[in-house]
Amino acid sequence: MERNNLLIAQSGGPTAAINATLAGAVEAAKKDGRIGRILGGFNGIQGILQRKIVDIGEQIKTAEDIERLSVTPAMALRSCRFKMKDSTSDPDTYEELSRIFKEYGIGYFLYIGGNDSMDTADKLGKFFKSRGEDIKIIGVPKTIDNDLVLTDHTPGFGSALKYVTTTIAEVLRDTKIYAQKSVVVLEIMGRDAGWLTAGSGIAQLAGGAPHLIYIPEIAFDADECIASINDLFKHTPHVVIAVSEGIRRADGSYVHTDERGGSTDAFGHQQLSGAGHYIESLIQEKIGCKVRSIELSVLQRAAGHCLSATDIDESMEVGRAAVALALSGESGKMAAIERISDSPYQSKVVPAELSDIAEKVRAFPTKWMSEGNSGLTEVGMNYFLPLIAGEKSSYYKNGLPNYFVIEDIFVEL
Amino acid sequence: MERNNLLIAQSGGPTAAINATLAGAVEAAKKDGRIGRILGGFNGIQGILQRKIVDIGEQIKTAEDIERLSVTPAMALRSCRFKMKDSTSDPDTYEELSRIFKEYGIGYFLYIGGNDSMDTADKLGKFFKSRGEDIKIIGVPKTIDNDLVLTDHTPGFGSALKYVTTTIAEVLRDTKIYAQKSVVVLEIMGRDAGWLTAGSGIAQLAGGAPHLIYIPEIAFDADECIASINDLFKHTPHVVIAVSEGIRRADGSYVHTDERGGSTDAFGHQQLSGAGHYIESLIQEKIGCKVRSIELSVLQRAAGHCLSATDIDESMEVGRAAVALALSGESGKMAAIERISDSPYQSKVVPAELSDIAEKVRAFPTKWMSEGNSGLTEVGMNYFLPLIAGEKSSYYKNGLPNYFVIEDIFVEL
Repeated sequence: MERNNLLIAQSGGPTAAINATLAGAVEAAKKDGRIGRILGGFNGIQGILQRKIVDIGEQIKTAEDIERLSVTPAMALRSCRFKMKDSTSDPDTYEELSRIFKEYGIGYFLYIGGNDSMDTADKLGKFFKSRGEDIKIIGVPKTIDNDLVLTDHTPGFGSALKYVTTTIAEVLRDTKIYAQKSVVVLEIMGRDAGWLTAGSGIAQLAGGAPHLIYIPEIAFDADECIASINDLFKHTPHVVIAVSEGIRRADGSYVHTDERGGSTDAFGHQQLSGAGHYIESLIQEKIGCKVRSIELSVLQRAAGHCLSATDIDESMEVGRAAVALALSGESGKMAAIERISDSPYQSKVVPAELSDIAEKVRAFPTKWMSEGNSGLTEVGMNYFLPLIAGEKSSYYKNGLPNYFVIEDIFVEL
Repeated sequence: MERNNLLIAQSGGPTAAINATLAGAVEAAKKDGRIGRILGGFNGIQGILQRKIVDIGEQIKTAEDIERLSVTPAMALRSCRFKMKDSTSDPDTYEELSRIFKEYGIGYFLYIGGNDSMDTADKLGKFFKSRGEDIKIIGVPKTIDNDLVLTDHTPGFGSALKYVTTTIAEVLRDTKIYAQKSVVVLEIMGRDAGWLTAGSGIAQLAGGAPHLIYIPEIAFDADECIASINDLFKHTPHVVIAVSEGIRRADGSYVHTDERGGSTDAFGHQQLSGAGHYIESLIQEKIGCKVRSIELSVLQRAAGHCLSATDIDESMEVGRAAVALALSGESGKMAAIERISDSPYQSKVVPAELSDIAEKVRAFPTKWMSEGNSGLTEVGMNYFLPLIAGEKSSYYKNGLPNYFVIEDIFVEL
């Protein structure tokens, strides 16, 4: 059997743009005569090990299918959270994957995901290479955390940032309608990476919020936070705070945990959730004004109705480029984004070494944060702004989202 | 001084469509030669009493201004929460308003708001009439609660419902990516009115969620809820629940309060928030599967990026019709929406008596809920579906929302 089939799978947490990458890859694979069947692995590597493999080339047929898939949030091929061990410590899994790749005639494998997925792709690539099996393995980035190295930013980040900034602007309007003093605290995802919360600083261009930004990379000081709010109250009755779920004290402990790691707030009360609630009760106690915390939760990573056109277009391009890399004979690479210029914004997709990416984390450069956590520097603004540029229309039917659904019709060999 | 100026103010909680009504009113007033200045009262009646009056006719100039204002969420004229007393028990307030209306040459007054605002408009209308002052007072409805009588639905409700249903469809996709059993509980606004939560049942057409719907009008039974989830788990691993913030036990007490009205969860733990967290901990305790609750909070009433075209168009039309009513000499009326047909959907604006509306509440007809709180009947579906039909483009600048802002430049007499 000829090994010219392409297998694509998705892994990790969802983004609103991860299917744009899949759509771009399918589009490119269909245009090129060298690829046989285009297969999708359901539920990532874990599902592939269970032979949950779908012929997506048969399901994604028209240009409209590609377009509709590209604006459908949350992985159409489902996902998994699976930490691949080394091939030496878990040879059976690798042997099984080798068998499955052979059975399905797979010569190319794209794994769309974050850090762990790049690690999996790296390990698989090295395994196949060591066995002399000619399978091209390409890692394709996605994560709203934006914390992968060697890429200017990650697909999916721009749309999450667009949702977060839009929401902040809306929340500011909502809170401004009453004359009374009030604070709204928005809790944003990012347990270790402050990119998304920090990036929300660009929303200041649409009304002035967020007024304060707290990220995991900068130690949180409760007294300083309260002093900053009181300072702001001298100029405006309405304060909006963007806080990352992972903010920590100077000693490295999460603010919403006590010394024993228990989940209590600053005053020893039982606490159901995280950093946003913590700051809410801090303000209640120390200032006593009207305060509300909102956890953006999964909405920020799945908001298919609020997409960045730049993000969707780039995500598709990354998918196309990943196919081109595999076809050109590359393996063990990630399709990374290189920024050419900020204004006008231009970027291109370039190959990066998977082994230089896997298990590394790119920290937000704290020098981009203004004094007193009050916003972004100009360099920071110029970095984030292009990533949310442009809007994409979503597909609706009867006023409801009309997603592209890949059915779990598994390939029978 | 001729009394031909029009004063418009907004009151109560925000909606994403309340400025569409304002835009429609301004548009109609500008087209008609009989109106002098178009004034806006900042912060509702409370602000009018402080003479916070703006010449909005001067600020809203072009067709694009009207258009941009119509898709700007959260009252451009700000709001207040102010319960008007009777003119007999608080004559000073009424006398002051009479003076202010005279000073500013106001012959027409539109008050855009919910129940309390209709009550205020009703009282003011009666007061002016009793004094023989010829001021036309028209109430203009808005509320995401949809609980006003004598109108098929309220402006603002459709856009809130579009945001809620879109979010439910997205959350379902988000949760489906993993194979494991999980429940997501979405807490939706409506302390007494279940319309918005019940209406979310139409999202079932976009993927099947919400699987269960709990509203204040139907007593919540914890055992029944757990049994329903376990039943659903026989067919699907992913359950999404829509719950109104105001659900109650059969004895009328809120589920997230204990017998003393304290804020504790089902198991006596300190609790920060409402019904969503309550059901989350109930499921944790009784089923033990992965569960997450999300409070949609103010996002659902301020989501200018996810508007129902039907809602925005109707809200504008209600604003235009309110001006027409005032100009035709009507007073003490509300501009209500009458549904002509479900499919194709058609409606018209008709006058209703303010005194028949004020302080009344329209309950959701529980017969529209299917057995076991599992969805809507056909009649219910047909009622809600047209209200979210169509999309509106929002205005963006640099990828960020570009709202129409009315500046607080107060008129100097």
